[in-house]
Amino acid sequence: MKTSRHFGLLLFPGVTQLDLTGPAEVFGSVPDAQLHLIWKDRVPVATGHGWRIEPTTTFADCPQLDVLCVPGGSGQIALMDDEETLDFLRRQAQGARYVTSVCTGSLVLAAAGLLRGYRAACHWMSRDQLALLGAIPDARRIVMDRNRITGGGVTAGIDFGLFLVALLCGEDVARGIALAIEYDPHPPFEAGVPEHAGEALVRRVEQDAERRQALRMAATLRAAKRLGL
Amino acid sequence: MKTSRHFGLLLFPGVTQLDLTGPAEVFGSVPDAQLHLIWKDRVPVATGHGWRIEPTTTFADCPQLDVLCVPGGSGQIALMDDEETLDFLRRQAQGARYVTSVCTGSLVLAAAGLLRGYRAACHWMSRDQLALLGAIPDARRIVMDRNRITGGGVTAGIDFGLFLVALLCGEDVARGIALAIEYDPHPPFEAGVPEHAGEALVRRVEQDAERRQALRMAATLRAAKRLGL
Repeated sequence: MKTSRHFGLLLFPGVTQLDLTGPAEVFGSVPDAQLHLIWKDRVPVATGHGWRIEPTTTFADCPQLDVLCVPGGSGQIALMDDEETLDFLRRQAQGARYVTSVCTGSLVLAAAGLLRGYRAACHWMSRDQLALLGAIPDARRIVMDRNRITGGGVTAGIDFGLFLVALLCGEDVARGIALAIEYDPHPPFEAGVPEHAGEALVRRVEQDAERRQALRMAATLRAAKRLGL
Repeated sequence: MKTSRHFGLLLFPGVTQLDLTGPAEVFGSVPDAQLHLIWKDRVPVATGHGWRIEPTTTFADCPQLDVLCVPGGSGQIALMDDEETLDFLRRQAQGARYVTSVCTGSLVLAAAGLLRGYRAACHWMSRDQLALLGAIPDARRIVMDRNRITGGGVTAGIDFGLFLVALLCGEDVARGIALAIEYDPHPPFEAGVPEHAGEALVRRVEQDAERRQALRMAATLRAAKRLGL
């Protein structure tokens, strides 16, 4: 008898909703998938823009995952100091086939010590912080290094999800999902990475994020210290 | 004093989560946005892959929206016979600046009589059904006809969301959001539309959806009859 494949995504307060839903939509479309949204308890969690999603399981009840995935978002900052979360990730990472993240979720994996010596992706604005945690920042949209697979910022989670499903289940399954979700993107303008956005826009977006980035850097430095780096 | 812009998305049982979250992530990133997830009551709603999201408002309490958006998913079929939902859409559409949809959400707008004589997009597999409801099917990923803006299947919602925000708030705001969500898609393979997927894959995906498509067609025919078409 064929057993289910367990895909688990961390669902934490302040998660960027599209970081989570991009890969979750892809994973959930795998025929034998069991999809888990995991948090400390089952109380609905307020995501980045405020609306609330119910976790489907808890740290205590979650089965061993085949794929462990940590999305990003401003709430990721608090997770970097949260030993309960970091312990859960370390425990799952021992048995998971793939240990993965999207966006700033890679900083959480790194804070748990799970990316030391691994190449990894991250949201462009926070990518450099990976180096402080012993990882090797990589500007590609999907980065695979042994069993660590990490995606870039937010929407990279869809590319990442399809890549991972192709790896796990074969390209034909992944292509079927791409067709079902009509994944033939046509961005109305080219501004999705700093190289295309232009200096003025990059500066404005960075300024809007300045306070958050300072908090993120402080959390990264604390985590680096705990890792002895 | 500048007032908020109200963006509202229908959150219904069986909604495809990415249909909703793609545009919601983009809309929620507009500086003066108030984002509403709307259903009949505030009880958490089970989305397409089973996980539950809490509506933020109800049909009765929802303010007049600037942007009304109906996502798709298998749950859309039941909405086509649901007068309470169709009435809500017709009422909001009278005052909304833009009446919009993603994926099979356009069939719900059409069932409400809101796309008669309008060009509209839809998921590729259900696009032809629009014609039965008096709309003009259009294979483009984003279709604008007067104040109706409709997106194609699932992931088209991100392109659609950025297009709409550019229209409402100016291209600079939309480009800033594209950069913040790192929207520089690199699909790992070209299979997102039937023309690229190849005949065998199209046939398999259509076969997997056969039962759902029959139910959808039956609902479309009932709605067409009610519209006198």
